[in-house]
Amino acid sequence: MYASLPKTAPIVQKYGGTSVGTGERIKAVAERIARQWRDGYHHLAIVVSAQSGETNRLVDMMRSVNPNASGVAYDMALAAGEQVSVALMSAALEAQGIKALPLLAHQLGIHTDELHAKARIRHIDTDLIERGWKRGAVAVIAGFQGVNSDHEITTLGRGGSDTSAVALAVALKARFCEINTDVDGVFTADPRLVPSARLIESLEYETAFEMASLGSKVLHPRCVELAAKFHMPLIVRNTFTSDSHRRTRIMPQSATGSLEELVVSGVTTDRQIAKLTLTGLRQDSAVISEIFQSLGELGINVDIIVHDKPHADQSLRLGFTIASSDLAAARKVIAELAASKGYDSLNIVAEGGLAKVSAVGVGMRSYAGVAGRTFNALTSQGIVIHMISTSEIKISVVVDEAEATRATQALHREFVGD
Amino acid sequence: MYASLPKTAPIVQKYGGTSVGTGERIKAVAERIARQWRDGYHHLAIVVSAQSGETNRLVDMMRSVNPNASGVAYDMALAAGEQVSVALMSAALEAQGIKALPLLAHQLGIHTDELHAKARIRHIDTDLIERGWKRGAVAVIAGFQGVNSDHEITTLGRGGSDTSAVALAVALKARFCEINTDVDGVFTADPRLVPSARLIESLEYETAFEMASLGSKVLHPRCVELAAKFHMPLIVRNTFTSDSHRRTRIMPQSATGSLEELVVSGVTTDRQIAKLTLTGLRQDSAVISEIFQSLGELGINVDIIVHDKPHADQSLRLGFTIASSDLAAARKVIAELAASKGYDSLNIVAEGGLAKVSAVGVGMRSYAGVAGRTFNALTSQGIVIHMISTSEIKISVVVDEAEATRATQALHREFVGD
Repeated sequence: MYASLPKTAPIVQKYGGTSVGTGERIKAVAERIARQWRDGYHHLAIVVSAQSGETNRLVDMMRSVNPNASGVAYDMALAAGEQVSVALMSAALEAQGIKALPLLAHQLGIHTDELHAKARIRHIDTDLIERGWKRGAVAVIAGFQGVNSDHEITTLGRGGSDTSAVALAVALKARFCEINTDVDGVFTADPRLVPSARLIESLEYETAFEMASLGSKVLHPRCVELAAKFHMPLIVRNTFTSDSHRRTRIMPQSATGSLEELVVSGVTTDRQIAKLTLTGLRQDSAVISEIFQSLGELGINVDIIVHDKPHADQSLRLGFTIASSDLAAARKVIAELAASKGYDSLNIVAEGGLAKVSAVGVGMRSYAGVAGRTFNALTSQGIVIHMISTSEIKISVVVDEAEATRATQALHREFVGD
Repeated sequence: MYASLPKTAPIVQKYGGTSVGTGERIKAVAERIARQWRDGYHHLAIVVSAQSGETNRLVDMMRSVNPNASGVAYDMALAAGEQVSVALMSAALEAQGIKALPLLAHQLGIHTDELHAKARIRHIDTDLIERGWKRGAVAVIAGFQGVNSDHEITTLGRGGSDTSAVALAVALKARFCEINTDVDGVFTADPRLVPSARLIESLEYETAFEMASLGSKVLHPRCVELAAKFHMPLIVRNTFTSDSHRRTRIMPQSATGSLEELVVSGVTTDRQIAKLTLTGLRQDSAVISEIFQSLGELGINVDIIVHDKPHADQSLRLGFTIASSDLAAARKVIAELAASKGYDSLNIVAEGGLAKVSAVGVGMRSYAGVAGRTFNALTSQGIVIHMISTSEIKISVVVDEAEATRATQALHREFVGD
């Protein structure tokens, strides 16, 4: 498995919610880890997520007693999910005859800032892990959680366990961080939408970050961002595949060797997008910033923004996308803002049922004609483009959600090839 | 509710698993606490158990990955149950507009010894609670769990939340410790077995301890023991009854005022008892102590012991009861001991399907004829007595489990009156 790795090198492995979703799976993972330990790799740090569904269950329970539950209590409830996974994985390792050192964030010392539900890791103490290794124990560490300077439990937000694993790999000076999940790696498109989608062997951080941000569910963008910042290679692989060559490596650009070609690495699909269009506003920058600030305070992420000033008059037309689940709250806060500030002429049009399809690739910046090819690929299929947004390494289009699969297939055919 | 209590007095309330078993119940408890807070009682410390069924669910999950799960990981898993309850209760209080300070054992500082799954509390830091009160917060504390000197989570064993509450009441110098549960208090017998059973208004510690030990499920004996040691009055009441006079007070003997009468306070019923009878042993005290020591190491509680030396020879006959669930393990360890020590003549007879019915009362010691009345009450109903055991304040009989209800009713009629 780790043929080229010295046996004393620290190895950080993260197992996600589906990998620990049942007792049987936990036992299978523990067997895999025990095999590695018996093969002589004794410096193992295992980061685990909550069992799949568990975080949602805990959130639902909290909402049932308090729809606005947040802060200390909220994080305390959610952290119980990873706590149970750590205990289960440790017990399963012990059943394999392997010593386990179960560690919660406050025990190990995964120190974060004060922000509940979206804390950021400041630093990780590794003493206990290294002391555990000295006495032959595999460290099993709770992902997703941290502790702040008031000794309160914090959580890192969704995707936080990946971030925990990368931060730990950095702290332990591991050579890479292994993300074990329920798919073989990152694909050129979602294989459920595009049957010809291929596993990507290697990706550089920037592309992986865009793909993660644009709806590829395999990795969380924040984890990729952190890995890039510390040049920590990520290896994304399937927990239950023994083929060590079937995986995606994510690493610095220089290592991927694909600088000169146009490589659209993949096509991503993000459903449940809504669009808000605001019209009737005077050309007044304070309005826009107030609206975006209010949305930000509610944690509503504004994605594609299309701002097109009609040249004939002084009124503003602003369109932007958000997650469908945020639509009601966004309409409400904008209406309240309009009422309190006297923006009487403001008109809000909301459209749900949209999806965003993006082609992502590092070579894109140097290739002309990408927008034209995108338009052509979609319109030739009769697919209506609601919005379009480009950056140096991606092009995104917003289409009707019902067209998401066909649009993904069309862009995959155009840029990746079937 | 607390008419005679100064508003600044610390109040410790414990809510058990059924009291926090659903979101609706948690909200109802939070409403009750909020009402007390608004009535001016601001020094509230709320101890909560895991939701009913949750500890068993966690145990089952641990056993599914490791049938012998124990130690650090086991306690870490179980502690998640109370952790979630603390978070839920805190969020429910916040929904009532009451500030909550959720505290896990390691945060507050419920320091225990090192023993996992049956740790004993050494001391409790109360600083955080008192600081919380100063800023108007209700402290919500995880029962059942502690932290040892290695910063590992420990648990106190079944019934541990009651013990946590009593220890906290002692630490906070509360005037009493309120145990809120799913029944109105301690009854003269299990009302499901004896319809005429009555709620006991007050009980002194010794009787309460015997009743708890003898199978009354309302309180754990350890909690009563701790309360007695520190003269901490216990008030056992129904979470969902507003009648503050319907409850059982447990307090020092002098306060109950019932010294001179024969008061059989109640009749308890403990099902799933097994009996082991050892014969063929030489009269050799080392054997008995070795057997009891081995059972103790496995955590098997030996209850009634009947040791009757036949005068004609030197062989020993020893009978004792244990919980049915311990029967297989007990037989195994005794057989192993016999094999390794060469007690070839040892013969073991095991009988399951028994129950223990006990009449408990503080006046018992000074009343003659209790054993005779017990025999008569049972044999007149045709109930076979397998074993009998007496102490200064109780008499216990072992009967067939199928006769447990009739035996309970017979003793209740004889000693308490219908």
